[in-house]
Amino acid sequence: MLRVGLIGYGYWGPNLVRNFAEASGAEVAAISDLQPDRLAKVKSRYPAIKTTTDYHDLVNDDSIDAIAIVTPVSTHFALARQALEAGKHVFVEKPLAESSAHAAWLVQQAKERQKVLMVDHTFVYTSAVQKIRELVAGNHLGKIYYYDSVRVNLGLFQHDVNVLWDLAVHDLAIIDYVFGGLAPTAVSATGMSHVPGQPENIAYLTLFFPENLIAHIHVNWLAPVKIRRTLVGGSKKMIVYDDLEPSEKVKVYDKGITVGNSLEKVYRMLIHYRAGDMWAPQLEMNEALQQEVAQFIQCIEHGRQPIADGEAGLRVVRILEAAAQSLARQGSLINLEARRMAA
Amino acid sequence: MLRVGLIGYGYWGPNLVRNFAEASGAEVAAISDLQPDRLAKVKSRYPAIKTTTDYHDLVNDDSIDAIAIVTPVSTHFALARQALEAGKHVFVEKPLAESSAHAAWLVQQAKERQKVLMVDHTFVYTSAVQKIRELVAGNHLGKIYYYDSVRVNLGLFQHDVNVLWDLAVHDLAIIDYVFGGLAPTAVSATGMSHVPGQPENIAYLTLFFPENLIAHIHVNWLAPVKIRRTLVGGSKKMIVYDDLEPSEKVKVYDKGITVGNSLEKVYRMLIHYRAGDMWAPQLEMNEALQQEVAQFIQCIEHGRQPIADGEAGLRVVRILEAAAQSLARQGSLINLEARRMAA
Amino acid sequence: MLRVGLIGYGYWGPNLVRNFAEASGAEVAAISDLQPDRLAKVKSRYPAIKTTTDYHDLVNDDSIDAIAIVTPVSTHFALARQALEAGKHVFVEKPLAESSAHAAWLVQQAKERQKVLMVDHTFVYTSAVQKIRELVAGNHLGKIYYYDSVRVNLGLFQHDVNVLWDLAVHDLAIIDYVFGGLAPTAVSATGMSHVPGQPENIAYLTLFFPENLIAHIHVNWLAPVKIRRTLVGGSKKMIVYDDLEPSEKVKVYDKGITVGNSLEKVYRMLIHYRAGDMWAPQLEMNEALQQEVAQFIQCIEHGRQPIADGEAGLRVVRILEAAAQSLARQGSLINLEARRMAA
Amino acid sequence: MLRVGLIGYGYWGPNLVRNFAEASGAEVAAISDLQPDRLAKVKSRYPAIKTTTDYHDLVNDDSIDAIAIVTPVSTHFALARQALEAGKHVFVEKPLAESSAHAAWLVQQAKERQKVLMVDHTFVYTSAVQKIRELVAGNHLGKIYYYDSVRVNLGLFQHDVNVLWDLAVHDLAIIDYVFGGLAPTAVSATGMSHVPGQPENIAYLTLFFPENLIAHIHVNWLAPVKIRRTLVGGSKKMIVYDDLEPSEKVKVYDKGITVGNSLEKVYRMLIHYRAGDMWAPQLEMNEALQQEVAQFIQCIEHGRQPIADGEAGLRVVRILEAAAQSLARQGSLINLEARRMAA
Repeated sequence: MLRVGLIGYGYWGPNLVRNFAEASGAEVAAISDLQPDRLAKVKSRYPAIKTTTDYHDLVNDDSIDAIAIVTPVSTHFALARQALEAGKHVFVEKPLAESSAHAAWLVQQAKERQKVLMVDHTFVYTSAVQKIRELVAGNHLGKIYYYDSVRVNLGLFQHDVNVLWDLAVHDLAIIDYVFGGLAPTAVSATGMSHVPGQPENIAYLTLFFPENLIAHIHVNWLAPVKIRRTLVGGSKKMIVYDDLEPSEKVKVYDKGITVGNSLEKVYRMLIHYRAGDMWAPQLEMNEALQQEVAQFIQCIEHGRQPIADGEAGLRVVRILEAAAQSLARQGSLINLEARRMAA
Repeated sequence: MLRVGLIGYGYWGPNLVRNFAEASGAEVAAISDLQPDRLAKVKSRYPAIKTTTDYHDLVNDDSIDAIAIVTPVSTHFALARQALEAGKHVFVEKPLAESSAHAAWLVQQAKERQKVLMVDHTFVYTSAVQKIRELVAGNHLGKIYYYDSVRVNLGLFQHDVNVLWDLAVHDLAIIDYVFGGLAPTAVSATGMSHVPGQPENIAYLTLFFPENLIAHIHVNWLAPVKIRRTLVGGSKKMIVYDDLEPSEKVKVYDKGITVGNSLEKVYRMLIHYRAGDMWAPQLEMNEALQQEVAQFIQCIEHGRQPIADGEAGLRVVRILEAAAQSLARQGSLINLEARRMAA
Repeated sequence: MLRVGLIGYGYWGPNLVRNFAEASGAEVAAISDLQPDRLAKVKSRYPAIKTTTDYHDLVNDDSIDAIAIVTPVSTHFALARQALEAGKHVFVEKPLAESSAHAAWLVQQAKERQKVLMVDHTFVYTSAVQKIRELVAGNHLGKIYYYDSVRVNLGLFQHDVNVLWDLAVHDLAIIDYVFGGLAPTAVSATGMSHVPGQPENIAYLTLFFPENLIAHIHVNWLAPVKIRRTLVGGSKKMIVYDDLEPSEKVKVYDKGITVGNSLEKVYRMLIHYRAGDMWAPQLEMNEALQQEVAQFIQCIEHGRQPIADGEAGLRVVRILEAAAQSLARQGSLINLEARRMAA
Repeated sequence: MLRVGLIGYGYWGPNLVRNFAEASGAEVAAISDLQPDRLAKVKSRYPAIKTTTDYHDLVNDDSIDAIAIVTPVSTHFALARQALEAGKHVFVEKPLAESSAHAAWLVQQAKERQKVLMVDHTFVYTSAVQKIRELVAGNHLGKIYYYDSVRVNLGLFQHDVNVLWDLAVHDLAIIDYVFGGLAPTAVSATGMSHVPGQPENIAYLTLFFPENLIAHIHVNWLAPVKIRRTLVGGSKKMIVYDDLEPSEKVKVYDKGITVGNSLEKVYRMLIHYRAGDMWAPQLEMNEALQQEVAQFIQCIEHGRQPIADGEAGLRVVRILEAAAQSLARQGSLINLEARRMAA
């Protein structure tokens, strides 16, 4: 029985606790939070779980095997570092850390100490994203042209990171998983803050990949409606993934173009439009976080790596870091290939 | 009775002909097109209209007062120039011209010859966009934070211009009209072509305006579904404008944030979320093109300037030109303020 | 070249004229309407078409081969009768007549005189309904359980017939076509008028068929939104047909139940729910009325019967008549099988 | 502190337990269920709650003040009777009982013993339905013309009652609450069973009220999609209530007709269509069941009657009983006014 300690019982923490509590093979041993009223809630729902306002109590508890960190981004590194150094397996809320140097350090530590380091890239564990990966991997879409995502709603403004670190991280994790490793050659990002002194609340990120694949991520904390819609365009088929649809979240369109030569006008290409059936595959109705927690437990048991391992978390943070640089220079291109070659 | 000659009876031409034919105060005198089969269609529907494969027949016909140009963008300048020089009023399909130099030349000519030069910025004449302008002008939205538009569908690939010149032009015309003159300080654009040798079929354009107003336009010729959705965010209210809604195209949300100081944590701003009613104003059910054609006729009659005059067309082309430069450099910022000061 | 005369240039007439005018093999020779201003519109659009306020001019014109009747229901019989008696082929706006006796008389006359009698059951000519028929005929849905349609919107109130005769007629025509001949065993209808002295503006019609097939039609002239949604449930698959969807009008769901015996509780049947993929077949993008007009012309040319022939029109009117009787008695069952056996 | 015992921990029971557990002023003392595996789940989530497979343990426990009955309909009467006779307050899952005689008996008993008898008419406690009631009560809709509801989805087939008792009960409770007491003059119902030996899984119920108000309820356990849409039509405004909308569940349309006299044709009324703004009032985001449980607790504390009291439950059961009679006779009208006068 894996004994889990959780740091941070705010917005997302209760979901993790519920899933760890109901998972087979694990139990929540203790929870720490700075706010006593949150701990009181824990006590009323889960009388058996120990609570504390000092996270050191968890880190220093030898009976605890794994630490889940569900705190603001700026604290991820310090907490994960202490947990790893105390010999715990670590589950960290996304994004893994505030900088790629910190993320790389955690990856290295986990490797050396042979501990599981997992990032909460939730969407990667949804049946919708897994179906999209399966369709891409099986070459059902043909050559991939673009990934285009709109992820906007009103709230929850973060104070320590901008909207890219909060929302675009989901799309970067999806792209990393669906296309098998996130290696854009360059990025360009624009955005704006509308609250003085606060990070950007609206942002647009373009990623350039080899072979004319382009990705664009469109995030906004100040939108009047909630939209979670992603288009994936391929030469053979195209996908519309709408996460807010109660069912049919993934629709596969047999649509596209074919390019031919015009007989009469040799200098001009002819574009033919192709429209066929639409198909919405049946998706499993399970909670992503449940899958995620189950994988974390199994990876610890069997010494395996989760899908959303530290390396995935690091790849995502590297892009976010580059995006931040481009954002600060109003869209100037940040060349990642050059960096990789230099590294 | 204004006698109109129309050049180009392809995709959009028939709509213009129908509207000029049914407008009071005008009649369609002649139509030219390079393809005789299109002219045959004219003959079967409108036996009284003269047809020709040579547009010079229209330009040189002294009984014709005005020329409507509904041809590919690359031909706009040459045709509009000849029409103006022949003393005609001119109505040009959007965008006005392929370059700001050409557009400026046409504006200057029309002014000197005291002719009406109008661009087919159709959306500016919809009751939806007019309502949005009214709400913005009346300060119902408060300080404007952003304009964010998604305009994607499958087709119609253009051969002489990229997707920005074809689709983003609509949003630039809307922004120009709604916010009273299009004066961004800088632009950044990214995009990609997926058909070898052809212009970009997917593109993303960010416009920076003074006072933290940001606009973003998202266009795609290769999307599996049609989306026409624009968000306008203000400090007091926010708009969702969905042009594909059969009714309730414009929805006004009494939503937003208020920023206060936290008592306990003075270093941190507190964001409060505000949600109120939604309201969808009743919109007139009229065809934009009908309003547009009526305004063209009236402006000629009374020597007035239309909303979508040559100046508006020129402002839009200037942005498109800057966007093309940024696009070619993968998002590099093009500073428009510097240009204006230099000019 | 079939020469067509059209009586009634009101709401629907112009659509028919446009389609006959553009059809190959036919031309519109003359149009009659009681209102001279409508005829003036004809003249401006189609200068070559003769106009008259007296429909006798059309009936008595020997150069006219076919008459299209697009007038209020109460006039259908008298006009169609005169046209048939004058030796014309006849196309009648739906429903065919106000009573089954009148409809039967027209069918009989057309048969005797070997003229084509066609009813404007428009939906039967849509690619959506044709696809549904194909799926039903090919047994893709399994045993059909129900047909359930909601057809509501604001307007157009009719003065001579109630909402069933105006809107439910569409569903009856669809059912007749999709299930191959409309033979319900009984009907029950309820409804209400909310305008004193006027026919019912809201009504609900249940049709009972052999083998537990039930149909329900739900119509309303006084609804704030337009809805056109039909569910067809079968043992193997189920259809949602939404006529207002711009694309994907027909969605086929691989959903249903299977019934098994419970092992532990032999007295109780176990219902298992089955959910699979959804599939939206690509539909042809053509105008139903164009197909309809083409079929009318071809049937006259080749002496064939159209899908929506007089017999289909008669079957639909018989149900409407029975529904009217049930409606007057607030849902009392009207047994149609007994009538058929008596006849 | 009110001590609650709950009988039946199946589909809905866990929701009630969670709400009673988190309500202030109450605690869940014990839960009974026939299936031990369900009780095991209780134990893992709520170690402090006593569990038993024998409901008598709850009824006979003097420390328990109130019993919540969340079992199949056929058991409601027997269980509620024993609970009342043991001096408990009673909360019963909808519908109150299988027959009006039973329901009336329970109402009478609760009255005599001065106990609170409440039915789980959940929708009556939603902010959407409360807003609709407020709009109707405030005469914002004008004279009410109709209530028209579609409530369909796949599952959960009941074995002891048909789909009207399972789903239409929601609409009857809403109508009862919104229009202030459910007094239709007559009802007509049709439907069908598609599983041999099982109750009807699809049904249509029309209710006739005084002054031309008509209600129609459309329920189906075998629909491929979930629909929860209600139209309420009034002379001044009309409502669309879509319970599946994440926000804007209630939309108020300023649409309708006005009736005037035609000048030229005195025998004919003229219908004018009126279209104005649409407005979606902001709704509280609270869980209905939480409100309901709070009201149950407060009514017990202060000796008050809840909105969904036994009388409301009885009125709803009377309609369901009449509907069942009509259903068995394929829509024959059941006159309720006559019954009330006879009673």
